[in-house]
Amino acid sequence: MASEFELIARYFTPAAPGPDAGVPLGVGDDCALLAPRPGRQLAVSVDTSVANVHFPADAPAEAIGYRALAVSLSDLAAMGAEPRWCLMALALENDDEAWLAAFAGGFHSLCHSSGTALVGGDVTRGELSVGVTVMGEVPAGEELTRRSARPGDVLAVTGALGGGAGGLALWQRGERDLNHPLLARYLKPTPRLAAGLALRDLAHAAIDISDGLLADLEHILAASGVGARLEPETLPLAAGLSETLGEPAAYRAALCGGDDYELLLSLPGSVLKEAQRRLAGQGLALTPIGTVCVEAGVAGVELGGAHGWQHFRGGKP
Amino acid sequence: MASEFELIARYFTPAAPGPDAGVPLGVGDDCALLAPRPGRQLAVSVDTSVANVHFPADAPAEAIGYRALAVSLSDLAAMGAEPRWCLMALALENDDEAWLAAFAGGFHSLCHSSGTALVGGDVTRGELSVGVTVMGEVPAGEELTRRSARPGDVLAVTGALGGGAGGLALWQRGERDLNHPLLARYLKPTPRLAAGLALRDLAHAAIDISDGLLADLEHILAASGVGARLEPETLPLAAGLSETLGEPAAYRAALCGGDDYELLLSLPGSVLKEAQRRLAGQGLALTPIGTVCVEAGVAGVELGGAHGWQHFRGGKP
Repeated sequence: MASEFELIARYFTPAAPGPDAGVPLGVGDDCALLAPRPGRQLAVSVDTSVANVHFPADAPAEAIGYRALAVSLSDLAAMGAEPRWCLMALALENDDEAWLAAFAGGFHSLCHSSGTALVGGDVTRGELSVGVTVMGEVPAGEELTRRSARPGDVLAVTGALGGGAGGLALWQRGERDLNHPLLARYLKPTPRLAAGLALRDLAHAAIDISDGLLADLEHILAASGVGARLEPETLPLAAGLSETLGEPAAYRAALCGGDDYELLLSLPGSVLKEAQRRLAGQGLALTPIGTVCVEAGVAGVELGGAHGWQHFRGGKP
Repeated sequence: MASEFELIARYFTPAAPGPDAGVPLGVGDDCALLAPRPGRQLAVSVDTSVANVHFPADAPAEAIGYRALAVSLSDLAAMGAEPRWCLMALALENDDEAWLAAFAGGFHSLCHSSGTALVGGDVTRGELSVGVTVMGEVPAGEELTRRSARPGDVLAVTGALGGGAGGLALWQRGERDLNHPLLARYLKPTPRLAAGLALRDLAHAAIDISDGLLADLEHILAASGVGARLEPETLPLAAGLSETLGEPAAYRAALCGGDDYELLLSLPGSVLKEAQRRLAGQGLALTPIGTVCVEAGVAGVELGGAHGWQHFRGGKP
């Protein structure tokens, strides 16, 4: 078997970062050295994707690599931060070289398209999991947080909801064609980095929808000390979701399914049209789904059953 | 079972960082926001500790928490970087609350004593492992790397060697008293942060000894394009190591055993005395063990057998 050092050298040492990458010293020493830009804050987050908890172990390796980075980048999107750097902690049961090459290919492709430099990592033996630390930059005071939603704000979501849960259902039924739009949304979600950057001067608060719309909405409400009224009939359902799951399950997936990685934003009604115009320029919808109010709790929906996806609480919806 | 959110809130949300911590926004949003100091480079590294690969699963939880941070901080020490922030990715098979409280206590105690603020993390279900990303700062141009060792330099190590392997051997024989010095060195190693900072203007190159002296020396030699001559009889053996392992095995542990987390430095002979004086002020020895030479390879030692610790290559020595 190849050694840890050989594996790292072969698959996880990208081409030397360009001069704009802010990487005075990349992979290969005890630490990487990074050069943050003056006047910016660092936004940092880590997410670990575990086989058969967060993704099917037999998903295509290229999708597993892509997805592990995507879910971490989604946190930068929700802060309105620009991605700069990442570190990967990979645990492997064995070192199937074809698998690793495909995995690294998926990871590096999203590094490239998002402008994120892989600057370090480690490889250990263990059940398959991928921990990705991302680092981005946002000018001080321009960040989007969860705690600034205000009564009267409009709540709006990017793109469409329920695709994550719909894709998982398809996978469980045996669908394996990654060109199927729902399956692609589940296994290769698009972190809404450009949307977060475009809206950070308009929105009051934001979060990415990883645990399910209701669960993530409640994080915003709790952090902001407000409540919300939703209009469930306005929820933008992922294309093909109702046909795949049936309408009641499709709405449940949009409300409670995880893994959508869209942004939920709280913004003044007066800027909604401008926000929609900006995202339309990216080919992305921004759909109002409710309003923020003073009264605690979420009105307008029946909360019968599970409330988004939490580890240690049970399986996927 | 408690939910992920509850676990994070209960055990991994430290007291709000002080005003000097450079944490405008800590645990609890999509990302933490950090304020790097002007003129510094960020030094970043990630290390994952896996149960029964890097530490015994039945080691005291407090030691597991402490150790997972220590091994990551050791990489900052080797760069001469000052620790600032960390993120933790914890995988748990269950959520035994007493275990978690002890684990968090060990982790937080080293955060506190090293001046490292825990700013984020995640908790997933899986076999026990702890991934720790550390971020430190070092003024541009003052970092210690692996690639600047020069022919004629003295090679020197901090503290004593072989304690990691000796402690592991004791653990395997059933010793469970963490006050035993060798066991303490294995399960609660001290990252040599103060030594790295004190020597960064004197040393040419440095690495921390995690894979074993010879394996880590070879990283320096390869990165610097030089060779070395060691004088094995000068190796500072951990107290009690010869008595515990016997002398031949003690030397093997000092040369090839992993988990020592001392620093190996390459520095001009002219500054050795000053370097020793500075570390003596910290109560730490600095022992010359050889010299850097032009000829590739390592002279002066017989390399019979395993060469330090690499995952995927087999068990601990």
